[in-house]
Amino acid sequence: MDQLLQRYRMTLAYRGTAYHGWQVQDVPKTWKKAAPAHGRGLPTIQETLRRAMEHTLRHPVNVVGSSRTDAGVHAKGQVAHFDTDKSQIPLIGMRRAINHQLPDDILVRAIEPVSSDFNAILWTTAKRYQYYIWHEDDRPLFIADLAWHRWKDLDIDAMKAAAAMLVGTHDFASFARPGHGRVNTVRTVSECSVSYRHPRLIISVEGKGFLWNMVRIIAGTLVEVGLGRFTPEQMTEMLAAQDRRAAGSTAPAHGLYLQWVKYGDDAGEFDSGDD
Amino acid sequence: MDQLLQRYRMTLAYRGTAYHGWQVQDVPKTWKKAAPAHGRGLPTIQETLRRAMEHTLRHPVNVVGSSRTDAGVHAKGQVAHFDTDKSQIPLIGMRRAINHQLPDDILVRAIEPVSSDFNAILWTTAKRYQYYIWHEDDRPLFIADLAWHRWKDLDIDAMKAAAAMLVGTHDFASFARPGHGRVNTVRTVSECSVSYRHPRLIISVEGKGFLWNMVRIIAGTLVEVGLGRFTPEQMTEMLAAQDRRAAGSTAPAHGLYLQWVKYGDDAGEFDSGDD
Repeated sequence: MDQLLQRYRMTLAYRGTAYHGWQVQDVPKTWKKAAPAHGRGLPTIQETLRRAMEHTLRHPVNVVGSSRTDAGVHAKGQVAHFDTDKSQIPLIGMRRAINHQLPDDILVRAIEPVSSDFNAILWTTAKRYQYYIWHEDDRPLFIADLAWHRWKDLDIDAMKAAAAMLVGTHDFASFARPGHGRVNTVRTVSECSVSYRHPRLIISVEGKGFLWNMVRIIAGTLVEVGLGRFTPEQMTEMLAAQDRRAAGSTAPAHGLYLQWVKYGDDAGEFDSGDD
Repeated sequence: MDQLLQRYRMTLAYRGTAYHGWQVQDVPKTWKKAAPAHGRGLPTIQETLRRAMEHTLRHPVNVVGSSRTDAGVHAKGQVAHFDTDKSQIPLIGMRRAINHQLPDDILVRAIEPVSSDFNAILWTTAKRYQYYIWHEDDRPLFIADLAWHRWKDLDIDAMKAAAAMLVGTHDFASFARPGHGRVNTVRTVSECSVSYRHPRLIISVEGKGFLWNMVRIIAGTLVEVGLGRFTPEQMTEMLAAQDRRAAGSTAPAHGLYLQWVKYGDDAGEFDSGDD
């Protein structure tokens, strides 16, 4: 059977509300007590997807996702790889059949054959996350699970200036949830920007890879800059501190979207336009 | 206490998904068996609102809504009236206090004092409904309960032509759910239009008042025109038939929005911008 295996790259979108994230995170034992209850007892995206694929392909499937998104986090362009010996199934039929098995809140957007050494985690060259804030007095009635509601005045220019100070190669230890298990906390952020068209405030962060909760801590810190609790200049001190306590709070999961994952020159972007 | 009573007009938005409509409809007994199960056992918007208001105002409250929206139907600008002797409460405080008591999917957008003879039903001069269709192969992942998913090709020009033929004063008996209990089925539609910017297809219908399920039957019929099952010219025959069986199917409730209700020159429109 091994000779017949074909590797595929799959692009996925999902609404993370009803899931315990992409997969159950390997939280260190000492942290288990303190781990947030959010998402506990819910299925994972990976497991739900694996079952739908095994039902379709009729053999055990291992789905390897590029990003282990947290409970409640959404994706418009998550990427995963898997192998199958059912390569005689036309791609469009395979996509339709898997989507037919999936619940309404998970969608396979594309499937394409790739070389057998492709790896959704290791081959990543860039990722983009967006953090969506609904900035209005009234609560977001129709997108309650899809955006973070902030109603106080925010100094958008200060947020933009602070965001710009995070661009570059820095030690982001202050912007990582403790227990991340990474020895090297240096990361390169190629874009960190704030765009605002009332009531939508979008924080976009791009880079090759991020530490655990890094984008949510960046979003939470930028909002605190907007509230005047930090100055943009303090970003430099925060980075230098290499201590989680130096940065702002962690923004909630339900405002975060994995927009796309790039491999080489391939954008792999899907703008569903429905947020 | 009667002398102290002040009447208020209240503008409301709600996500209808978790509710059995504005209030339990008075379905004729002979129809009860055939009534759809959708929404059964769920609370009504009116009852949920009444409880929140009584908790805030601390006296029995009668909330009279302009439109009795069906189970699953949403509103961006429903209007209701009520009386209270607690007129010493500042309006902004009253609105905040009621919103604080309401669940996340119902929102009071405005409260204003009106004359004691104001009636949310009788004083209506115009209403606007929108029917939201998500026209794309892929299902609407983030707005599954907020739009009707149609994926087949639609002839938008034919839909526009058919919509235009419904404008005017006609007997809309063919576009009413049987059991509506109205003797007079003549209604004036001042606007019926179709706008399309892929993947969003919006059918807008404006008039002083509508028959039961009328906008949903118009939407369902226009989609069937788009599919080529009817020609725009057949709208004339449908109206003339005065028979529900002559028109197309009823579009599902979850794509329908009550946009606003007008009284006199007052627009009372609230565009939440979050669909």
